[in-house]
Formats: sequence, structure tokens, C-alpha cells
Amino acid sequence: MEKLKQRILKEGTVLPGNIVKVDGFLNHRIDTALMDDMADEFAKVFDVKNITMILTAEASGIALATICARKYGVPMVFAKKAKSDNIEGGLYKSDIFSYTYKKKVTLLVSQKWIGKDDRVLIIDDFMANGFAVRGLIDIVKQSGAELVGVGIAVEKGFQPGGQSIRDMGIPVHSLAIIDEAEPGKIVFRDED
Amino acid sequence: MEKLKQRILKEGTVLPGNIVKVDGFLNHRIDTALMDDMADEFAKVFDVKNITMILTAEASGIALATICARKYGVPMVFAKKAKSDNIEGGLYKSDIFSYTYKKKVTLLVSQKWIGKDDRVLIIDDFMANGFAVRGLIDIVKQSGAELVGVGIAVEKGFQPGGQSIRDMGIPVHSLAIIDEAEPGKIVFRDED
Repeated sequence: MEKLKQRILKEGTVLPGNIVKVDGFLNHRIDTALMDDMADEFAKVFDVKNITMILTAEASGIALATICARKYGVPMVFAKKAKSDNIEGGLYKSDIFSYTYKKKVTLLVSQKWIGKDDRVLIIDDFMANGFAVRGLIDIVKQSGAELVGVGIAVEKGFQPGGQSIRDMGIPVHSLAIIDEAEPGKIVFRDED
Repeated sequence: MEKLKQRILKEGTVLPGNIVKVDGFLNHRIDTALMDDMADEFAKVFDVKNITMILTAEASGIALATICARKYGVPMVFAKKAKSDNIEGGLYKSDIFSYTYKKKVTLLVSQKWIGKDDRVLIIDDFMANGFAVRGLIDIVKQSGAELVGVGIAVEKGFQPGGQSIRDMGIPVHSLAIIDEAEPGKIVFRDED
């Protein structure tokens, strides 16, 4: 998605450790108009008329997933991390390693809000090692729902998450795939 | 907001400890169409044409704040909780007690994304003791921005958060104020 790539080049920065910082429009301050355009892009690739829900993980995936869900006319469910008092019993769970928090966290989705009749599109803002998305895929499988695909805003193509999910035969569409990220230099993968 | 109250009566449940569970449409599974109506309601009360941003706190406030920001044509910024590696330096911070996590957490907002020229509307899904909202108010004050008001979907009127913020002279509008919550019984405050 050219508009997103240009925005990354203009405003993104790369921190040591190949951390791509796009907090001015994607995951701290949110440009909701840009997210609206992203939702249109996903709709070109996935059959969004035939999904029943959007699934994402808290926290930074929620904004994009919300915009997509509103546009496609379906509910959005976000997996919670760790155990909070506001969710009791009846949970699908998947343990993942969080690089953000540097520890294991558990993704939780109430069994009430996803079931075998659902057709699910997973949406997330970022994918690097893909632990969060793999946890969401695990939860979709536990529920018996159909996984329609995985839509990602920014994929770090030099980390193994995207490939590992494509190797599972799951349709993945990332709006921008970054193949190289060093301070002062961001290189995108060519579109097919 | 009658539509929200009816939804709470129909689908909400009260757990021991006066916990009001509305996770089917507000804070786990999200009804984005209902949130669109909520955004319209806030626009009747607050001068949303003259705000420059929406501010909320992760995680469950993000969906409603995103819908509001998109509708009002402004960016949405969400305060992060605790310290993650993806935010370095230059932060406004406010320590709050989180009942969800049963411990102190720190709300963080990058100083880049809020400043003295901003006019800020705070949006959150829930207010009980109001710790999260008071943390956000604290951050707005630190930044020198103008606080236009606080919009809340569901306020627990029998807990002190709402009153404590109104006592500060800050305009607060809650779409549904619950004055009594016991298993099997939810009583709303009458509209003015």
C-alpha cells in the first residue's frame, strides 16, 4: 500500500535492535483516516462480505481492527492479555511470548464470542516474530471457527513471523513488508 | 442514551463485587455500530468541531476512542500502561492504581503527541473510581493542553470517580450512569 509506505518513510524511525517506530500514526497516536484506507485495502484481498467477525489482540491492534470491523459491518473481538477479574471461566487461551513485555503472556478470548459458525479475519498492526498472530490462530482453531485470513499493517519481513504463517497455508496480506530496517534506512519488499 | 441503557439491561450481567459485565458489546466483543451512535451522542454535548485530538487509555478505551476520532476527523492517542521498549524518553507519566490488574500502573503519553496548542476530549468506556481518567487528566495538565471534557460510555455512579472529576469543574458526560448494580438488578440514574 503505497500511501502507508510513504508515511513510514516520511515519519518512521528505526531504533537500535531493528525496532521500527511508527508511533505517530499507527500504534500510539492513531491516524484514523489512514486506517480507513487500510481497511479498504484489506477488502480488496479478503472476502470481507462473508466474514462474521474481526479478531485482534490488545492493545495496539484494537484501533485498526475497530475501523475494519465498522467498515465491514461485523463485530470486533480483541484477545485480552493475562487474566483480569472482568472475565470469568469459559475461555480460549493461548500462551505467547511478548517481546513488548519481555515475558510470557496468555491471550484470552471468551468462548461466548467465537464459535464454529464464525468466519474470522485476524487483523493486527504489526507482525515480527508473529507470536501474537499465532496465538490468535491457535484460538480460532480451538473454537472450530473458519480462519479467512490474516491482515497486517506492517510486517517485518526479516523476522520469521510472516513466513511461518504462510507456511501453514493461511492467507496473509501485509500492507507494507519491511525487508531491511536500520537507522536511516528502510527498504520495502517489492509488490508481487 | 436510551439505546445503550436498553442494551445493558438486555445483555449486561452483574457479578459479585458490583462488577458490571458488558463484554458482549463494549469491552471484549465490540459492537462498532453502537459505538458509532455513542460518538454521535458525545457530539451533541461537546464541541467536537473544535477539538484537536481524542485521548484514552489502553486497552478497552481504544475502540470507542477510535470510532469517535474517525467521526470527528481528529487523531486518537492512547496512553500506554507501564513501560514498553517501543517508547523511549520524552514521556508524560501519571501513576494510577488499576483495579483490573490489582496494582499500580503508569500511564505514558509521548510528549510529541500532545502539547499546549491541543484541545483534548478524553474518552473511555468505563468509569468507576476514575483512576484511569484522573491519570489522563493529569497528563493533559502536564502538557499544557486544554481539556474540553470527559466522555464516558458507562459510569458506575455509586463509585466516586465521576463526582470527583465533576468537582474539579471538568465537564463530564456519561451515556449511562448506573446507580445500583446487584446480580439481577441494574438501576440507571434519571437523565437531568
